[in-house]
Amino acid sequence: MNAEYDMVIIGCGPAGLSAAINAKARNKHVIVLGGNFCSPKLHRSPRIDNYLGLPGISGEELRQRFLEHVEKAGVSIRKCKVISVFPQDGSFLIQTEEEEPYSARAVILALGVTARTALPGEKEFLGRGVSYCATCDALLYKGKTTAVLAYEKEAEEEAKVLAGVCQKVYYLPQYKDRPGNSLGDNVEIIEAEPTVIEGEKLVEFLNLGQERLQVDGIFIVRESVPVEQLVPGIKMSGKFIQVDSDMAANVPGIFAAGDCVGEPFQLAKAVGQGQIAALSAAKYLS
Amino acid sequence: MNAEYDMVIIGCGPAGLSAAINAKARNKHVIVLGGNFCSPKLHRSPRIDNYLGLPGISGEELRQRFLEHVEKAGVSIRKCKVISVFPQDGSFLIQTEEEEPYSARAVILALGVTARTALPGEKEFLGRGVSYCATCDALLYKGKTTAVLAYEKEAEEEAKVLAGVCQKVYYLPQYKDRPGNSLGDNVEIIEAEPTVIEGEKLVEFLNLGQERLQVDGIFIVRESVPVEQLVPGIKMSGKFIQVDSDMAANVPGIFAAGDCVGEPFQLAKAVGQGQIAALSAAKYLS
Repeated sequence: MNAEYDMVIIGCGPAGLSAAINAKARNKHVIVLGGNFCSPKLHRSPRIDNYLGLPGISGEELRQRFLEHVEKAGVSIRKCKVISVFPQDGSFLIQTEEEEPYSARAVILALGVTARTALPGEKEFLGRGVSYCATCDALLYKGKTTAVLAYEKEAEEEAKVLAGVCQKVYYLPQYKDRPGNSLGDNVEIIEAEPTVIEGEKLVEFLNLGQERLQVDGIFIVRESVPVEQLVPGIKMSGKFIQVDSDMAANVPGIFAAGDCVGEPFQLAKAVGQGQIAALSAAKYLS
Repeated sequence: MNAEYDMVIIGCGPAGLSAAINAKARNKHVIVLGGNFCSPKLHRSPRIDNYLGLPGISGEELRQRFLEHVEKAGVSIRKCKVISVFPQDGSFLIQTEEEEPYSARAVILALGVTARTALPGEKEFLGRGVSYCATCDALLYKGKTTAVLAYEKEAEEEAKVLAGVCQKVYYLPQYKDRPGNSLGDNVEIIEAEPTVIEGEKLVEFLNLGQERLQVDGIFIVRESVPVEQLVPGIKMSGKFIQVDSDMAANVPGIFAAGDCVGEPFQLAKAVGQGQIAALSAAKYLS
């Protein structure tokens, strides 16, 4: 088990970082679990003019200021992908690609906009052949056939792990580049977009429209896990997490802020909501 | 008539100023109608640590940055007290202490927390003996008896205006200092806290608990007019303006942000909500 926290914040964009400094201001033991790069959206903005107090600043400069602020506040940002958030004994277990899960009594989701929605069948077969983490689940498929549905280049590493365990691995890159080096002798690269995951009780086929691949397991590698998969039972409003005015989701102890709760996709709004979420979570904890 | 605007923002605290720069970013013709001093609350904060990007800043420095940002954006802040916001022909007439009203197609209320609620009878007798503006209404009470219920020192000027017109003026200071100079020979200063405004169809008495003053008119001078009085028909939720997640109030074209819509009374939350309100208002206008 990784250390136990009062709050775990998932996401290191403006909403997550604002939640972090506000949780700290309430003297909470808090950590941010973020992606490889905090806020690429901010990084790409050449000039921001509507964040009150810092006119005409570049997105990158603002990003640096945000990260420095969080560092100064003494909150750590851990780069890791969160696989699932499960309630357990009035607390939450947060499973990441790391071996040990994190534990927290409250969780703030600051996930940004996940461009991709779940693949048909993905939700139904999760844990019955669908996995988000080769490092975690590869051994379950020893000597079997698996497919890697790769929405980002990092999936190549996952494929290599599987290649060392499985008899056969199909690799379906959905991103721009193609693997430079071989992923393994037993890895076949297939250029196709899957349409649906099929099977009786367990996964049997990955349907590609024209053909179907017979597989025992499917590893889906995205920048982030779709939110309905991440937190079982969370209530959505369309593509967004449903929250009340305190930024509380329907699952007690889960809060959300920023782009993942809806438009406008704006900086000050995200920062403000991050603050509300942290203060509401602090109130929930006491 | 003062100039016509797309949006009028009432209040120059963090929510109002954030709304201003965001309205400008959407290319709207906008003005801020603010109090004598923008954000005394910010001014008094020795150190603010939870506004992301500006760690450990003094409230006064942040206040200056906010005002400079708004000035840089080309939005004017006009110091004046708003008396009422009335819908008229799909637009709003905003009456202030100035002679000419403002006109706007959308209004953002960023009023902060009004510490005082209305006096019993105040709402019922508004326009029937109760007034918020001596400059506007003094002549209606020529040769009559009036009372000035003074929650702030600025009321002394109102009393002087009335002294020149009325036969008799009772002046009831509810603030700390007392008038240094005479307010007029016909002005009687009374140290008492009124409990209720009484009368049949029109105002007849100001009840002080132990005694009642017979009056024809009562001028109530506060830093701001209670919001239910300001915008007829606006829906409240307890002491706060009821808004949806777009910061829209129940009256179409009226939006609200910051402390006046509820807790937490926090800076980043106010700035974020000001942004949402401005963007929603811009959407409403198009």
